[in-house]
Amino acid sequence: MNKQQILTKRPVGLPDASTWHLRETPIPEIKDGQALIKIHYISLDPAMRGWMNDAKSYIEPVQVGDVMRAGTVGEVIESKNEKLPKGTFCSGWGGVQQYVVTDGKGWYPVNPKLAPLPMYIGTLGMPGMTAYFGLLQVGQPKAGETVVVSGAAGAVGSIVGQIAKIKGCKVVGIAGGKDKCDYLINELGFDAAIDYKEGNLNAELKQKCPNGVDVYFDNVGGVILDAVLTKINMKARIVICGAISQYNNTTAIKGPSNYLSLLVNRAKMEGMVVLDYASNYGEAAVEMAKWLQSGELKSKEHVVDGIENFYDAFLKLFSGDKLGKLVLKVLD
Amino acid sequence: MNKQQILTKRPVGLPDASTWHLRETPIPEIKDGQALIKIHYISLDPAMRGWMNDAKSYIEPVQVGDVMRAGTVGEVIESKNEKLPKGTFCSGWGGVQQYVVTDGKGWYPVNPKLAPLPMYIGTLGMPGMTAYFGLLQVGQPKAGETVVVSGAAGAVGSIVGQIAKIKGCKVVGIAGGKDKCDYLINELGFDAAIDYKEGNLNAELKQKCPNGVDVYFDNVGGVILDAVLTKINMKARIVICGAISQYNNTTAIKGPSNYLSLLVNRAKMEGMVVLDYASNYGEAAVEMAKWLQSGELKSKEHVVDGIENFYDAFLKLFSGDKLGKLVLKVLD
Repeated sequence: MNKQQILTKRPVGLPDASTWHLRETPIPEIKDGQALIKIHYISLDPAMRGWMNDAKSYIEPVQVGDVMRAGTVGEVIESKNEKLPKGTFCSGWGGVQQYVVTDGKGWYPVNPKLAPLPMYIGTLGMPGMTAYFGLLQVGQPKAGETVVVSGAAGAVGSIVGQIAKIKGCKVVGIAGGKDKCDYLINELGFDAAIDYKEGNLNAELKQKCPNGVDVYFDNVGGVILDAVLTKINMKARIVICGAISQYNNTTAIKGPSNYLSLLVNRAKMEGMVVLDYASNYGEAAVEMAKWLQSGELKSKEHVVDGIENFYDAFLKLFSGDKLGKLVLKVLD
Repeated sequence: MNKQQILTKRPVGLPDASTWHLRETPIPEIKDGQALIKIHYISLDPAMRGWMNDAKSYIEPVQVGDVMRAGTVGEVIESKNEKLPKGTFCSGWGGVQQYVVTDGKGWYPVNPKLAPLPMYIGTLGMPGMTAYFGLLQVGQPKAGETVVVSGAAGAVGSIVGQIAKIKGCKVVGIAGGKDKCDYLINELGFDAAIDYKEGNLNAELKQKCPNGVDVYFDNVGGVILDAVLTKINMKARIVICGAISQYNNTTAIKGPSNYLSLLVNRAKMEGMVVLDYASNYGEAAVEMAKWLQSGELKSKEHVVDGIENFYDAFLKLFSGDKLGKLVLKVLD
């Protein structure tokens, strides 16, 4: 049988236990051209919250009654598709379920000998690619500049900060809690970290970015975006990657009150979606893999076990009760 | 005697009659290297409201007790400066007063035979340069794209729309009132106009921009910026030139709630300050003058007479009770 998490209804605010239900269905037979993939790990990402809203966005909403969309990594266990022979490990949009049948579109092979499987949906997957292209293509940091990143201990933010360090920038991470801040400095080599839960955001930014902010990579929006806007330098670049602080709002999103700082500083704020860079994922992954091998880049996965625990695991994205890339382990 | 408008105090919200006072002082003697300029016209601009706040910005605030800062155009009536001989007409930061003594720094000559004097502080001055560089350098419109401009009947907006037409774009202006909208279409050749006071902003934008919005030149901020954000196309460019709807706020500026449309559409929002382009004003003015001569570009000035009427005239910027570039006539 195939256990699946089905979207039951569109949540208002934070999803709760009734937002999805677990369904068991027979594992489908495959036809010519198809492959059956056993899913080992499921990627849990803040963007999934957006896909649950019935709103025009960069991707179609998940329909009520459908399997919840998610990036996954797994193994082909039966195949009538020559591009995905049995035994192939691969990554693609498998959804929150244990098995998926695919014609292969959007799936690409991964090598479990080169890196652990969860890394292919983390640092070597979408979150890593988001960090790589968002920072380098949109943020365009130069050596010596100050780069600030929010959600800094998360899957994207932790990679943004480390790549910025590799590029010779001064890096300040914003995260929630002392443990995460210590991790950023002691494990990942950030120059400084700010615990936004301490409530001294403006003073801390001033102290830890004495030369102002040249690039701000924003994963959170809200008051943190507004605070950083008061510290940006001339010609600063703000990368809008996400706004996790606003995804469960039941009222209007908080727009950045300080956006006229863009005018004063001739700065820009630009949105990015990683899917645009798909044709360049390969080269990026090669460079990232080199940095991982040399130890310049560290990858951390926070693994929760069991498809039954999807809901509890998903909420950790918003409670912040995790470190690094959050993944759900489904089957061995 | 020299009549001057002096900043009495920093206003909270909309300035009132007590924000400035009229002072009469003797016309100063000039020293070696100086020139005495009789001011004919004073430029009244929304940006002046920002200069009255004690806040870090792209220019120093006007100090309480000082002559109110303003762009002006006038004539040299006495001179001990060889670069500004007697009889020279010139433009510069003369302030809200009848006479000014200068060492010449920041002043440049203008030719009253080629264009009427008020035009040198309008279409051929800062507002025109703001429109030219803001649209072309920051907005980067391509022929066939849809350009939307707010404050469209104003000094900057009216020029933005006309240049966009010259560049082959479809142009939609947002202005307050039927007269202004008629003017945009019938006199300036805009493709469409939206009267934001009618209250159907979203529906009108949808109807008048059937292909979405590629470039939005924003002079107003607030609800209009938010409405346009819901209609932008992929890779749209939003030029942040000003936010007149927010300048007299006594509470926080309204940030754009819909800013995540930048993410969905991989769009950018960029601030601009015309002063950055000073070294290129000359070439721009030559091109603008050609368009004026050919009739492709029309310039309209709204003249109020008398330095005593500065306050009443200034408020027209915010009430919208004017059409085109607002100038104060001081002396003949």
